[in-house]
Amino acid sequence: MSTASTINAYAVLESGGPFKTYQIAAGELGATEVELEIMYCGICHSDLSMIENEWGIGQYPMIAGHEVIGRVTAMGEQVAHLKKGTVVGLGWNSGYCETCHTCRIGDLNLCREAKFTILTNGGFADKARADMSSLVVIPDGVDYASAGPLLCAGITVFNPLVQFDIKPTDKVAVIGIGGLGHLALKFFHAWGCEVTAFTSSEEKRKEALALGAHKTLNSRDPAEIQAAAMSFDFILSTVNVSLDWDLYIQALKPKGRLHFVGAVTNPIQFTLFPLLFGQRSISASPVGSPGTIETMLEFVAHHKIKPEIEIFPMSQIEAAFEHLKSGKAKYRIVLSQEG
Amino acid sequence: MSTASTINAYAVLESGGPFKTYQIAAGELGATEVELEIMYCGICHSDLSMIENEWGIGQYPMIAGHEVIGRVTAMGEQVAHLKKGTVVGLGWNSGYCETCHTCRIGDLNLCREAKFTILTNGGFADKARADMSSLVVIPDGVDYASAGPLLCAGITVFNPLVQFDIKPTDKVAVIGIGGLGHLALKFFHAWGCEVTAFTSSEEKRKEALALGAHKTLNSRDPAEIQAAAMSFDFILSTVNVSLDWDLYIQALKPKGRLHFVGAVTNPIQFTLFPLLFGQRSISASPVGSPGTIETMLEFVAHHKIKPEIEIFPMSQIEAAFEHLKSGKAKYRIVLSQEG
Repeated sequence: MSTASTINAYAVLESGGPFKTYQIAAGELGATEVELEIMYCGICHSDLSMIENEWGIGQYPMIAGHEVIGRVTAMGEQVAHLKKGTVVGLGWNSGYCETCHTCRIGDLNLCREAKFTILTNGGFADKARADMSSLVVIPDGVDYASAGPLLCAGITVFNPLVQFDIKPTDKVAVIGIGGLGHLALKFFHAWGCEVTAFTSSEEKRKEALALGAHKTLNSRDPAEIQAAAMSFDFILSTVNVSLDWDLYIQALKPKGRLHFVGAVTNPIQFTLFPLLFGQRSISASPVGSPGTIETMLEFVAHHKIKPEIEIFPMSQIEAAFEHLKSGKAKYRIVLSQEG
Repeated sequence: MSTASTINAYAVLESGGPFKTYQIAAGELGATEVELEIMYCGICHSDLSMIENEWGIGQYPMIAGHEVIGRVTAMGEQVAHLKKGTVVGLGWNSGYCETCHTCRIGDLNLCREAKFTILTNGGFADKARADMSSLVVIPDGVDYASAGPLLCAGITVFNPLVQFDIKPTDKVAVIGIGGLGHLALKFFHAWGCEVTAFTSSEEKRKEALALGAHKTLNSRDPAEIQAAAMSFDFILSTVNVSLDWDLYIQALKPKGRLHFVGAVTNPIQFTLFPLLFGQRSISASPVGSPGTIETMLEFVAHHKIKPEIEIFPMSQIEAAFEHLKSGKAKYRIVLSQEG
């Protein structure tokens, strides 16, 4: 039986261009490939960055979208662990080399040959194809409509908890309460930590407390941050702007870590001595490996964690992106192909 | 019996000033204090930085020197684990608060109230006094004359091996082959790692290989460093100058760490994306805790590691500092009160 099919997508034909309906004639599935009927796809700020070629790695026409929830409809001949109808998630990566040392020790998300879903065939479409290595089964107890954002925003903020062995006794803080940050508050709360949110307004302060923060600090008041010196084991920055990083480094306890998951494109600058005398670290990471995504989904199901989303029909993708650009999304937009 | 005594030191009376013979009438020993008859004291670049008040925290008159080997001559009433004649080492810290959380979890070297030996009574003298918490017994098999530099240079480069769980299978590299760096090469070699030295000349290259490096890279050839992208699990920087840190970050494997122990006073600047896509870390640390110093000394005794030193009589301290400033010391200067 042929596995050729037609993918109906919303693509941008050139950098920054408007979305156009766009068809791809997809040939026979590769032996390890899977085709999904897309149910939902979240919108991540990095979709916009790629569409606008902010990072200089865009290829056009581009079908963006990488927070995909879909049903398996077809499988290559080597795909034995899935079946038709299984609901799976597809995130930032749609495949890995699986032969490099990094892949072989389980860090597939750090593979230099990993494929970017946006640059193969993304989720702003009715169907998507990806290598089986990149797909994770959505477990029972996880709400499909809101699960998309877990595949990028979620795993990006969950992964550091695993990578850096964050403990429930740690005091943690989050910079930037948006698509990534609101999930960080939920995860860190469920992890058992005392959670502080850096917020910029009274409205944001209330929202952060409702999302899981136990405390807040005014990110626009350097004196307030200075007074919190030596407070945190772990500070997660989800913003993509430059801040006075020395202020945040000094808010770390000895051996504390300032960790970046927001894509800051300006150079990062800091003073060494506070890092040195406190044996502190600065680090950054992208999304997580498929194995860590599975761990996250089990944690999400157990703790009944749900991204806060606003749903748009996928046909209204332009309006959804306008809403994203307005900065007013609470907190993640999901495009729906359902009903 | 009175424990009052007179300390005969070489002090600088003002910032940058020449060394002068200087006497202190030391009163009765505190209950947990120990007095040493100094045998040897290494000279560290930080002695010069403190004498010249480069870091703005100097107090004068100043008796610098913090790589001290001495014999116990008197003890306060609570000192039960030492006896007269025991040879001990005294490093950067001469006491700790011992009541803060950081001390209580064993990280005395990160205690905010830790005393600096240079600011209490340093080792450029015939006697020194320090709290018993800061003294470590020099074990059998360690050469007293060359042991001083272990107490600051040595522990500074040994401590990261312990703190960051460096494994013999890790590939490590050292930037700066001087007082700290030459000991790093010896330690890393004995740790079982494949060791690379960044060197700036053919002469330095040969020296690095003789000290324990297995490979070298030309630190003045960016193309050579670029070609070594993704090579190292751990890069230790012992220099106090600004380099193109992005070059070194890219030389790290995924999850690799660029660690600073050299006191760079200029801001550190780097580009986030290579850190993010490789989940890499940047960190820094000062000396180690007394417990880690003991671990180092056992390792030193077992592996017969010795700092490379040049000995000057302490009375020639001015000439010794001139030699330090010339940059030609191979690799550490030790002042001797012996014979």
